[in-house]
Amino acid sequence: MNIAVLGSGAMGCLFGSYLSKRNNVFLIGHNSEKQAFLDKNGIIVRERDGREDQYYPHAVSDCAALPVADLLIVFVRVMDTLAALESNKSIIGPDTYVLTLQNGAGHDEKLLKYVDSSHAIIGSTKHSSCVVNPGLIFHSGIGKTAVGVINRDSDITFISDELTACGFPCVVSESIKKQIWDKLFVNTAASSLTGVLQVPLGFILDDPYANSLMRKMIHEAVEVAKADGFDCFDEDQVTKSVIEVIENGKNGYTSIYTHVKTGQKSEVDYISGYILKRAKELGIPAPCHEMVVTLIHALENRNSQNIC
Amino acid sequence: MNIAVLGSGAMGCLFGSYLSKRNNVFLIGHNSEKQAFLDKNGIIVRERDGREDQYYPHAVSDCAALPVADLLIVFVRVMDTLAALESNKSIIGPDTYVLTLQNGAGHDEKLLKYVDSSHAIIGSTKHSSCVVNPGLIFHSGIGKTAVGVINRDSDITFISDELTACGFPCVVSESIKKQIWDKLFVNTAASSLTGVLQVPLGFILDDPYANSLMRKMIHEAVEVAKADGFDCFDEDQVTKSVIEVIENGKNGYTSIYTHVKTGQKSEVDYISGYILKRAKELGIPAPCHEMVVTLIHALENRNSQNIC
Repeated sequence: MNIAVLGSGAMGCLFGSYLSKRNNVFLIGHNSEKQAFLDKNGIIVRERDGREDQYYPHAVSDCAALPVADLLIVFVRVMDTLAALESNKSIIGPDTYVLTLQNGAGHDEKLLKYVDSSHAIIGSTKHSSCVVNPGLIFHSGIGKTAVGVINRDSDITFISDELTACGFPCVVSESIKKQIWDKLFVNTAASSLTGVLQVPLGFILDDPYANSLMRKMIHEAVEVAKADGFDCFDEDQVTKSVIEVIENGKNGYTSIYTHVKTGQKSEVDYISGYILKRAKELGIPAPCHEMVVTLIHALENRNSQNIC
Repeated sequence: MNIAVLGSGAMGCLFGSYLSKRNNVFLIGHNSEKQAFLDKNGIIVRERDGREDQYYPHAVSDCAALPVADLLIVFVRVMDTLAALESNKSIIGPDTYVLTLQNGAGHDEKLLKYVDSSHAIIGSTKHSSCVVNPGLIFHSGIGKTAVGVINRDSDITFISDELTACGFPCVVSESIKKQIWDKLFVNTAASSLTGVLQVPLGFILDDPYANSLMRKMIHEAVEVAKADGFDCFDEDQVTKSVIEVIENGKNGYTSIYTHVKTGQKSEVDYISGYILKRAKELGIPAPCHEMVVTLIHALENRNSQNIC
């Protein structure tokens, strides 16, 4: 397949590398110097057991000369999705499938501006990675990947199979939106709070005040999910699984934490902000979400201005 | 008069010093070493024009030998009020007036455990001060002081007159609780947010996100005040005066900011926490207050544990 990966951050590099084992992969980034470096030197993926493998997807910063893609995977930062799709729309043809595995929710609406519902795929992955050096990434987490197409009549098994064959065990899910909610619960109740409080994940469980806020966030989010048609969720069950995820990463720092700390725009608008937006649309109160989203934006501003 | 001042922090030292011009003042603190130092060396008050005056109130750490006070002024940290009154109750006689000028609200209930309602005085002052060195304080702010007795039949003009004569222009107010609410609005909408966001006061006005939170806090607080019987408050008017106070102290840091930063217990429970308590008692929603109080406690804990 001709596969284009939009975004050459840690996750783009990981997926671009693995998929290049069996496919013609174009890794697209906006920084031409960095792309030239990756194209020349390849990408080293350091696995958790210390093994290092080198991959050579084509790394480019200009899509003009590229063929129309069979599959395009979006891995840019969530706030850049629309701009990235727009400037690379020449590689999206009528048969191109576009897949997002980005954090957060609400991305499907953006994909649907460029492909029809039988070609728009949303998903979530438990793989994680981070950049060690330019050209060297650490593959920090592995796990299941699930994908689902907006128009369920469309058969995307071949995409799921290809991901599996390349090292990302993947299933096609009939309930992909439910799985995205599952990830939203963790991110809104844990990641967003680590951003506001500027703490490692474990603090959210250990501190009684932070813990009570986590539970309030879960409560609000579950109420919104229910009103959104997902009455399968049980607040106690959700709480249990959020706690489990936090316990497995107690000493870790979330990306919202890091973005806030360094005064960058975080992805909160696509996580807690998405839930808040749905809450407003559905008429469900979500005051904690409103507060958390607003506080995070204030803290992003504070830190970008070096105040305090 | 025999005047006892409970608490030898910056405000206790300021009031103890000025009142010693015309009265027999006992400044009571719990740290015997510090008290001995103050007693021996006196207190220097540096005024805003640079002038420095020295005062010699009696500084003691044990009230056993002290006469019953005509007036006792409480200036300990709000969370220490009850303990301080309890361990110094031997100087409270049937004719002793007890006055609190502490920040926040809800202190009257504590005074009433030790004196009857004709001797319990609450008030608020615009004077401010901070400790420069042991024995040297900077008198950073001046302004009106207002006092009011719980039982309005009781005449406390002589106390107000004595404060005025000693350098604290003071009025007896029939509506002291309204004035305490006025100060609460500023503290809950500005001070508490500077604690959560860890910013100087001006950020609350300048940053659009922080500004919107300030307005939400004012909205909730005014609703609680109205339900509490103070229907004199107008949200727009309150907003205007909160903004005015912030503008006059843009580069300043609040005590909640400092306490949170250094991992100490802040006074938030007596400011936003008092409003939250009243809100619950009155059945008024105050989700922003609940969030702010909880976040501040979580941040106090984070910083006291040196996490992050």
